[in-house]
Amino acid sequence: MNYCCVCGASVSLRIPAGDTLQRYVCDACGVIHYRNPRLVVGALPEWEDRVLLCRRAIEPRHGKWTLPAGFMENGETVADAALRETLEEACARVELGEMYTVISVPHIHQVHVIYRARLLDLDFAPGAETLELRLFSEDEIPWDEIAFRTIAITLRHFFQDRRHGSYRFHSEDLIAPPPR
Amino acid sequence: MNYCCVCGASVSLRIPAGDTLQRYVCDACGVIHYRNPRLVVGALPEWEDRVLLCRRAIEPRHGKWTLPAGFMENGETVADAALRETLEEACARVELGEMYTVISVPHIHQVHVIYRARLLDLDFAPGAETLELRLFSEDEIPWDEIAFRTIAITLRHFFQDRRHGSYRFHSEDLIAPPPR
Repeated sequence: MNYCCVCGASVSLRIPAGDTLQRYVCDACGVIHYRNPRLVVGALPEWEDRVLLCRRAIEPRHGKWTLPAGFMENGETVADAALRETLEEACARVELGEMYTVISVPHIHQVHVIYRARLLDLDFAPGAETLELRLFSEDEIPWDEIAFRTIAITLRHFFQDRRHGSYRFHSEDLIAPPPR
Repeated sequence: MNYCCVCGASVSLRIPAGDTLQRYVCDACGVIHYRNPRLVVGALPEWEDRVLLCRRAIEPRHGKWTLPAGFMENGETVADAALRETLEEACARVELGEMYTVISVPHIHQVHVIYRARLLDLDFAPGAETLELRLFSEDEIPWDEIAFRTIAITLRHFFQDRRHGSYRFHSEDLIAPPPR
């Protein structure tokens, strides 16, 4: 951030009066520009004993597999975002179940939220950001080719909970930066 | 938003190629400025059969009662934010329990998250944004003086779950704008 989006003057990084953290503050109009974590929201669509994964057509992690998910938009509920992303990335219609995982990823200023979901039909197709779609049973999951660790964590919880015969909500943190 | 925070040129509201929603796009450098919902995170601190509420010293809802909560910061986990806000608003040390409520508030582009928490001692004191603090039993809660509907919803779930002898995670939406 170099300029104030309100008045166009330059901004400086400093701690405003009464605050404890550095913020971008406008040198002219004084507006404080807060920056906050973003929500990445998606679904874990089930069909019988299989789950739907998307192979990414975009960076980061082009070619890797993930659940349909993306940035929540203003004006949406968390559930709206999960449904929209599932429709955009997989052209898939689902009935959302419970919110299933909430995983903080503080080093990239994100919180990832995944709902359980039931595919309503098999009439899905790759969206613009997806190369291909496939239903995977547990023993077919390409664990070494999963795009994001929060997605792998969510899938592991899912299969473990399913073996135990009951699904519970999981909230946790992903602290370490990913290995390079 | 009037100016690009990267290059200082003017921005226009338009739908970028490949997108479906209007965004602020820089007329010079082309950067797309996304705006996303913010997380408001807090705690429901318990001491024996009572809960700790804060009377607000700031707008909105100056003088009304709430749980310690506020905007999540970059670099934090959701739990970090709940602990920090409890310390800032109530100078209170708590042991966090489970994530308890996640409530979407789409008309103000927010998602409110409250954890259950156990007060570690009674050595609390109003922070800069708090007029006074008080422990309330269920029959003392000033329901007509609660600052935010998401907080009232969370408190109602809490007392109802407590009567039923088990606490469960709640995720829901608060759709209608508040009455004026």
